[in-house]
Amino acid sequence: MWEEIAEQPEVLRRGLRELGPAAGRAAEAIRASGATSVAVAARGSSDNAARYAQYLLGGRNRLSVALAAPALFGGYARPPSLEGAAVMAISQSGQSPDIVAVLSEARRQGRPAIAVTNDPGSPLAAEAGVVLDLRAGPELAVAATKTYTAELLAVAMLSAALGGDEGEGPVMMDTLARIPDLVASVVRSPEAAREAAAALRTADRCVVLGRGHNHATAFEWALKLQELCLVTALPLSTADFAHGPIALAEPGFPILAVAPKGPLVEEAHALLAGLVRDRGVDLVVASDAPDVLSLGRPIPLPGDLEEWATPLVAGVAAQVFCHALAVDRGLDPDRPRTLSKVTRTR
Amino acid sequence: MWEEIAEQPEVLRRGLRELGPAAGRAAEAIRASGATSVAVAARGSSDNAARYAQYLLGGRNRLSVALAAPALFGGYARPPSLEGAAVMAISQSGQSPDIVAVLSEARRQGRPAIAVTNDPGSPLAAEAGVVLDLRAGPELAVAATKTYTAELLAVAMLSAALGGDEGEGPVMMDTLARIPDLVASVVRSPEAAREAAAALRTADRCVVLGRGHNHATAFEWALKLQELCLVTALPLSTADFAHGPIALAEPGFPILAVAPKGPLVEEAHALLAGLVRDRGVDLVVASDAPDVLSLGRPIPLPGDLEEWATPLVAGVAAQVFCHALAVDRGLDPDRPRTLSKVTRTR
Repeated sequence: MWEEIAEQPEVLRRGLRELGPAAGRAAEAIRASGATSVAVAARGSSDNAARYAQYLLGGRNRLSVALAAPALFGGYARPPSLEGAAVMAISQSGQSPDIVAVLSEARRQGRPAIAVTNDPGSPLAAEAGVVLDLRAGPELAVAATKTYTAELLAVAMLSAALGGDEGEGPVMMDTLARIPDLVASVVRSPEAAREAAAALRTADRCVVLGRGHNHATAFEWALKLQELCLVTALPLSTADFAHGPIALAEPGFPILAVAPKGPLVEEAHALLAGLVRDRGVDLVVASDAPDVLSLGRPIPLPGDLEEWATPLVAGVAAQVFCHALAVDRGLDPDRPRTLSKVTRTR
Repeated sequence: MWEEIAEQPEVLRRGLRELGPAAGRAAEAIRASGATSVAVAARGSSDNAARYAQYLLGGRNRLSVALAAPALFGGYARPPSLEGAAVMAISQSGQSPDIVAVLSEARRQGRPAIAVTNDPGSPLAAEAGVVLDLRAGPELAVAATKTYTAELLAVAMLSAALGGDEGEGPVMMDTLARIPDLVASVVRSPEAAREAAAALRTADRCVVLGRGHNHATAFEWALKLQELCLVTALPLSTADFAHGPIALAEPGFPILAVAPKGPLVEEAHALLAGLVRDRGVDLVVASDAPDVLSLGRPIPLPGDLEEWATPLVAGVAAQVFCHALAVDRGLDPDRPRTLSKVTRTR
């Protein structure tokens, strides 16, 4: 797993060089169809990349993004109308029948069918009109790392391709071009994430908070904690947390948060400061804002990135954190207690 | 809280009598607009009612349902296009600015704007073209019970009103007419749920599984466990669980599941049987299928309902479970450690 974490700068550089034409074809298919929304089908880490797409394509490209309910296409066999929508399936392996069923239905309804996958020979790719082949190389660790980050990049490059007309696309690509070096610095300097991980050495539960673009990071961080560290990690949007689960907060309760600078940082700062001050939680916080970092055990995010791009770096910091925590807890990150790399659900 | 749980048969009867005209107007507004999708904005328990809408309106009415990302409308101020969509906001209080912002944007874009709320005088209702007034009476307990169940009913009556043309609507209404008596029997016979709750007396974490229509129930059950019982309860679709978090399963790990008869029960039975047999988890299961109930501590669901209607009964069983567990753990269900009944996020 560590090897695959460390490969990510190179995977991202390759993606930046090679994913452009397919992202352009996907954008053209969406535009040509007149779609005003995108339905995304995915599971696990790929579903977290879909969460990123929800905010990025929604906020940058004005596309309403729905996370598809694969059970409607699989087990229930009652697929909804996809009129007005493009459909994107994201899957490292491209194997799960319920995810493939969503793309099949898109084709049946004559809608654009886009696959984002690491296996261009998969059943998913075979159903797609456009394939964004992640070219991340074989992922041998059960826990997805480089394919998750490559999926985020593919989503961001699709957003840039869609935004090209308004001049925002090239600016987004300039930002993305900085990501490989920033990810390399996160992998080269894992100390802060490792130190922060010590906070959870004996924890069996925690809450992970993020909002907006980093809703994805909160869910991916929690998923890695579940799979690798056997921590019952509950991911929540910062806003949803405030509406009820905040009851869990008590002295020593571990809360992890990702809250970089940007339009949502003030509300996040106020909430996190209150949690530390009034409830004595044990806070770990990933951010590039000094006043947020000072609230808890800090995981500084490098690069002073535009907020929309921070998940590509924050996600890697979360991987470093979870790898260190698994080792700390005497677990083998290369052999988590999962059943298998590829899971088939209907 | 117990009084409000016990009021639910009457709240449902009132809803069945009085919500029909507004549900009909909402259905007509959706039809007249030509919408093929519905964007739903909500938080907390209301967001779980939105999860129900995703499967019910998707499977019964062929409407693609997206859970809106309120941050795009609020904090980011970058709302996506709502072309082709109707917009429904669900909120007990109708107060949260980010949820109100979604309906305001729907109106600005000329799309149908539907509010489902318990306060027809709220800012949310003021923004709506059609208001489904839940008429559940004042909800004084911080934990939503009767308003959640009333929201599910409102969603189901909207689905029936939309399906009226194909003759399915009246059949759905016949099924819904049975719900108040079934809910009354769940409240009158709380023993099984209470006995099952004893399994979690000392637990500080658990996983809650459901899929399809009962994805909503899993999330609502988990939310109540978080708010009332201070259990870090992680809700997951049964399919998502199989894709990774299953690593958490070990001897004695508490897993709660709702898995009634229907198109998804075989896959659920196979997964749950494996969890008990191979991993020794402590399973609590709500179902109307004897072979599923026999896998763990049983919470029998009465009525032999069509699967789409089971969340209205299963949700109440989950409330009874959580109320009993809170009392068991020495907590006061009427005074959970939450901040307030109404939370305002932007």
